[in-house]
Amino acid sequence: MSNSADIDDREEGLTLNPKFDASGLITCVATDAASGELLMVAHMNDEALRKTVESGEAWYFSRSRNALWRKGETSGHTQRVVEMRIDCDQDAVWLRVEQKGAACHTGRRSCFYRRVDAGKGRAELSFVDADRVVDPETVYGKHT
Amino acid sequence: MSNSADIDDREEGLTLNPKFDASGLITCVATDAASGELLMVAHMNDEALRKTVESGEAWYFSRSRNALWRKGETSGHTQRVVEMRIDCDQDAVWLRVEQKGAACHTGRRSCFYRRVDAGKGRAELSFVDADRVVDPETVYGKHT
Repeated sequence: MSNSADIDDREEGLTLNPKFDASGLITCVATDAASGELLMVAHMNDEALRKTVESGEAWYFSRSRNALWRKGETSGHTQRVVEMRIDCDQDAVWLRVEQKGAACHTGRRSCFYRRVDAGKGRAELSFVDADRVVDPETVYGKHT
Repeated sequence: MSNSADIDDREEGLTLNPKFDASGLITCVATDAASGELLMVAHMNDEALRKTVESGEAWYFSRSRNALWRKGETSGHTQRVVEMRIDCDQDAVWLRVEQKGAACHTGRRSCFYRRVDAGKGRAELSFVDADRVVDPETVYGKHT
């Protein structure tokens, strides 16, 4: 357990001291710097965080591929970091970015293209802002 | 491993099929429905997600307290859900909320009150939008 001096320093100090989880990852939220739109939620390991700070381009860690990943390295849909913030307990990062093309691998601008509504007994989804800005097959080849 | 039919259904279908992690949790991002400001990042378990959909108020699961948690149950700083969305692979939820008071337990409106800048050899933090809108000692008693 952390003691309260550790907590005060992490929450009120000016030292970057990210709290990585048991897998060595921290959650990262990317929003469009101009519109404020939520684009995606992903993860960073220590190296991705460092490369993002140093380069001003978003790097992530892919849990499914278990690999460091420069956003846009395959698609060209890079994210230039306009501002980076960290939250109170330093277990989440917020990137305000200039997004080229589509943030989502499905070709949509944002990954959040479905709304959840309360239905009769269970939730229902509906598409919203779901137009593809690029064709994922063109960008990635076979769409998986 | 999931097959591609599962992936297509999860990404392009209209059935809510959240992908909880090994701890039974899903990441949740809350933004201010009016301003678009990022307020907080937290987690939901299956019950928190269900209660949020049913009640229209944000419920989370606290990893530190290992407990279901209605946002604002202690502080009164509730979140009324204006819109709820889910991302492409259904492992992250976005709530657009009407936030009463402060989203952050430190008394700030948002948890993201420090900016990360590239420094000489290491990152540096600085406070930004860091005014407290409430006194956390008044709201929670002893500030821990």
